Amino acid sequence: MLKMSTLFLRTLRDDPADAEVASHRLLVRAGYIRRIAAGIYSWLPLGVITLRNVENIIRQEMDQAGFQEVHFPALLPREAYETTNRWQDYGPSLFRLQDRRGADYLLGPTHEEMFTLMVKGEYSSYKDLPLSIYQIQSKYRDEARPRSGIIRGREFVMKDSYSFDIDDAGLDLSYQRHRDAYISCFNRLGMKYNIVKAVSGAMGGSKSEEFLAPCATGEDTYVLCPKCGYAANVEAMITKVPAGDPKGVPALEELDTPNTPTIDSLVTVMNKNFGGGYTAADTLKNIMLVADGKAIAVLAPGDREVDLKRLQENLRGVHELRVFEEADFAKHPKLVKGYIGPQNVKALGITLYADPRVAPGTSWITGANKKNRHARFVVNGRDFTPDAYIEAAEVREGDSCPECATEIIIDRAIEIGHIFQLGRKYADALNLSVLDQNGKSQVVTMGSYGIGVSRAVAAIAEQTSDEIGLNWPAEIAPAKVHIVATGKENLPFDTALTLGTDLEAIGISVMLDDRREASAGVKFKDAELIGNPIIVVVGKALADGNVEVRVRATGDKSEVSLANAVTAIAALLK
Amino acid sequence: MLKMSTLFLRTLRDDPADAEVASHRLLVRAGYIRRIAAGIYSWLPLGVITLRNVENIIRQEMDQAGFQEVHFPALLPREAYETTNRWQDYGPSLFRLQDRRGADYLLGPTHEEMFTLMVKGEYSSYKDLPLSIYQIQSKYRDEARPRSGIIRGREFVMKDSYSFDIDDAGLDLSYQRHRDAYISCFNRLGMKYNIVKAVSGAMGGSKSEEFLAPCATGEDTYVLCPKCGYAANVEAMITKVPAGDPKGVPALEELDTPNTPTIDSLVTVMNKNFGGGYTAADTLKNIMLVADGKAIAVLAPGDREVDLKRLQENLRGVHELRVFEEADFAKHPKLVKGYIGPQNVKALGITLYADPRVAPGTSWITGANKKNRHARFVVNGRDFTPDAYIEAAEVREGDSCPECATEIIIDRAIEIGHIFQLGRKYADALNLSVLDQNGKSQVVTMGSYGIGVSRAVAAIAEQTSDEIGLNWPAEIAPAKVHIVATGKENLPFDTALTLGTDLEAIGISVMLDDRREASAGVKFKDAELIGNPIIVVVGKALADGNVEVRVRATGDKSEVSLANAVTAIAALLK
Repeated sequence: MLKMSTLFLRTLRDDPADAEVASHRLLVRAGYIRRIAAGIYSWLPLGVITLRNVENIIRQEMDQAGFQEVHFPALLPREAYETTNRWQDYGPSLFRLQDRRGADYLLGPTHEEMFTLMVKGEYSSYKDLPLSIYQIQSKYRDEARPRSGIIRGREFVMKDSYSFDIDDAGLDLSYQRHRDAYISCFNRLGMKYNIVKAVSGAMGGSKSEEFLAPCATGEDTYVLCPKCGYAANVEAMITKVPAGDPKGVPALEELDTPNTPTIDSLVTVMNKNFGGGYTAADTLKNIMLVADGKAIAVLAPGDREVDLKRLQENLRGVHELRVFEEADFAKHPKLVKGYIGPQNVKALGITLYADPRVAPGTSWITGANKKNRHARFVVNGRDFTPDAYIEAAEVREGDSCPECATEIIIDRAIEIGHIFQLGRKYADALNLSVLDQNGKSQVVTMGSYGIGVSRAVAAIAEQTSDEIGLNWPAEIAPAKVHIVATGKENLPFDTALTLGTDLEAIGISVMLDDRREASAGVKFKDAELIGNPIIVVVGKALADGNVEVRVRATGDKSEVSLANAVTAIAALLK
Repeated sequence: MLKMSTLFLRTLRDDPADAEVASHRLLVRAGYIRRIAAGIYSWLPLGVITLRNVENIIRQEMDQAGFQEVHFPALLPREAYETTNRWQDYGPSLFRLQDRRGADYLLGPTHEEMFTLMVKGEYSSYKDLPLSIYQIQSKYRDEARPRSGIIRGREFVMKDSYSFDIDDAGLDLSYQRHRDAYISCFNRLGMKYNIVKAVSGAMGGSKSEEFLAPCATGEDTYVLCPKCGYAANVEAMITKVPAGDPKGVPALEELDTPNTPTIDSLVTVMNKNFGGGYTAADTLKNIMLVADGKAIAVLAPGDREVDLKRLQENLRGVHELRVFEEADFAKHPKLVKGYIGPQNVKALGITLYADPRVAPGTSWITGANKKNRHARFVVNGRDFTPDAYIEAAEVREGDSCPECATEIIIDRAIEIGHIFQLGRKYADALNLSVLDQNGKSQVVTMGSYGIGVSRAVAAIAEQTSDEIGLNWPAEIAPAKVHIVATGKENLPFDTALTLGTDLEAIGISVMLDDRREASAGVKFKDAELIGNPIIVVVGKALADGNVEVRVRATGDKSEVSLANAVTAIAALLK
């Protein structure tokens, strides 16, 4: 029984100055976590219990699915990460250090390499597969902007699983088993979530989905089709635009467009000098960027921004992406800033990408690659040909669902899980092969599956808390029942203790506010802030042989006779 | 149920090349741990289960004692450790790193500072105390010589508790409560151990005891009195030598002792030229050392080495200790190497320490501080006076117990727990005070209490394993019962599975060897190597309706009817 008279807990009346989101604010105020450094938190007793409840649910579901738990160190030697290039690729997000002999180590941000090597060390035959192994462990990422308390931390608890299969069909099955286990997990955690298509990004691999917990303050943006249920991270949203019909489009015509280096100024001049009805959507943006040191051009309709995060995720393997600066233009004197058109970009040795909205056969107004000159009737496929199409333009609410063309909704969420089909990237790099049925060596194909365990605590808090405090699902709460004893007599305190003991005897965990000096008002406020699902008040009603039972989530109150209290509370928790 | 047909496990026939001790050898061979780097190990499924069993016993005992669990990050900012000087004091044993902004961090080797700050953040009154909080967490120490597998690792799991009290009497009580909880813990873990007096060393503080698990390959040496039970780490062993009687000792006499720079050569010359019967015990060694850059002299009887580790632990707060080198002698030209005596050491501004065996009033042969000259009848208190007495001479089997003068035994052990009365060192440095009953600010007094959790796994293995494998106590083993199905028919496999299911239904964990391709011999060897306490063979005896039940620890075998098997096995485990 958690007795508040001795519990290591001080709730705070005021919001912490650095807290932007509800979960952060409330977890600090209710005495669950404390900040140690940017993105680094300690857990007080209530936080430890809650975190462990979440951890245990995840562990049980993993075990239930037949995945086996292992445990890796967080401190890892450089070699394997060097082999897969991630020692470099992670850039400043990786915590690197040296030991006393000067050997390089890192703090594991994720353990693909180590799991691959572990399986390589033990297994050698197709008969050993499939295998899924996991760990629950502290991970380290030196985030540029750690924020939102434990939602984006630099040290955090993660459950990471990895599957190993002999072939793609096996990987599909392992992926599905993880997907199912995740659904069970998040259902038990009492979370609302959507499973959305994702770009697998720096992890490599093919198929990838995210589990997103909708939340107004979430960092992730995703699209959802209200009709067919299509859901995707904005980075992974697919744009389907029909090809244009270039027949009947006049030949490319150069126009005199003085002082029109921006889309807005161009549209104004076009409408004034070259006929009416032009909008930004008729123009073509030529965005010059530097991707890992190499110049690239990206085409998008003039009425849409290029979404750099979306573009970068789709430019697989690019670690640094930025727009051209003056110095870059200086290196490419043939690019006329403000008047660039795709007509000659490729001739300059620059890769030309187009957003799918710049569909084949479509006709555009764009730069003429001469100062103060633009061109119209510039047709994709006739006057320029992109090297490749890439999702780059921003996604907007109301865009068309790629599956059913319904207008999509855009929402925000916290990423709580991510499942990947890695394929053979890591097994290839680290040489993990097994003998197949014919005695032939086959590279193993892998999946990687993560759940943010500490983040899930915050995400649940975001989804369930209200203006007065935390409000946990029963399986997550530090205790199922929070008994408040009030008054100055011994009777309510003795009665509360007996009731607590009786509840614990039938397996219902109890937190008991047995503080003698705190007022009833302070105790109620603390109970609401701490967020256990059932609050029982043992006080005035005792004169009638009753206790008051409150449901934290609904605010429902009722008086129950003391004799029936255990049964009534147990029924409420069912 | 752990089924070996799918368990992620490969046992090894051969000992790993780098394994020196039984626990390391067997934990690797039986597939519990794998080496990642020096002193850094991963845990395979059997290891995870065993480690968690140990962890849970410790957690239960801590909770039972009323200690509350919290959790700190391993990645910690430099500041607090700077304040207590441990950022420097830890020297190369501390893993240090910088984040992307260049801020200094460390990987926590132990968390005194952080716990002190946590309590400071929450508590402010004597009414809040006493408080004991703990965590179970990965710790990091860059050991100069990581060895013996998980016994001395660089990343390891530790349970560390800290107590907070308003006064010394409270600290005594908290210390005793931890001591009691540790006794319960180690008893439940099925370990043999001794509680020995220890020097608190770099941790500061006063009272300190170690829990040592006797083990021939242990790194720690301790003394034990077979009569009164006195036990101490050799570093903490106290020497009680009666004062000498200087009355009647002639005046100091200088002697001509050419070519006698060593004790041996001196004794030979003394016996030849100055009467017979001299031994090394009559001579006095003057050991010149450098302690944190400062020269010191230490006196010890000529027949005993100075134990540098023992000396350093007793020289509280000294981080680097080494014997004089040529360069040091060059800086002190008045010290005549080979002929130093304590008569003029203090005049040279050098602190003079004496081992207690160089008792007041005792008379010695020692150097005369002149080349080729010694002196006899050199009396402590008359011809020289030590600045302080310090335990420095080596401890030997047969030395006198300081409590009852019986001859002590010397044994080796693994340190599995350590309890300290820290006192106010950290609270002073980090300004942790509370108001007392009179509203006066009082610095809190602290205790620090550690258990090596991952090390305990190895220590239990060391104490219980035998030549054929591991041999766990039931509460620690990956499973309580290891069922081996043998033969080629389905019957034994089906029967074994049913038996396993029945056992698990009554809460007895089961590992089932259901491999179809492995021979009975391989399965028996694996069962013995893995070390679950009860081995049940479902095979030939089935023809008579029996199974064979083996007790791993004793080798006892008996046939039990299948119908009675569950009852019989449950009885054996009681």
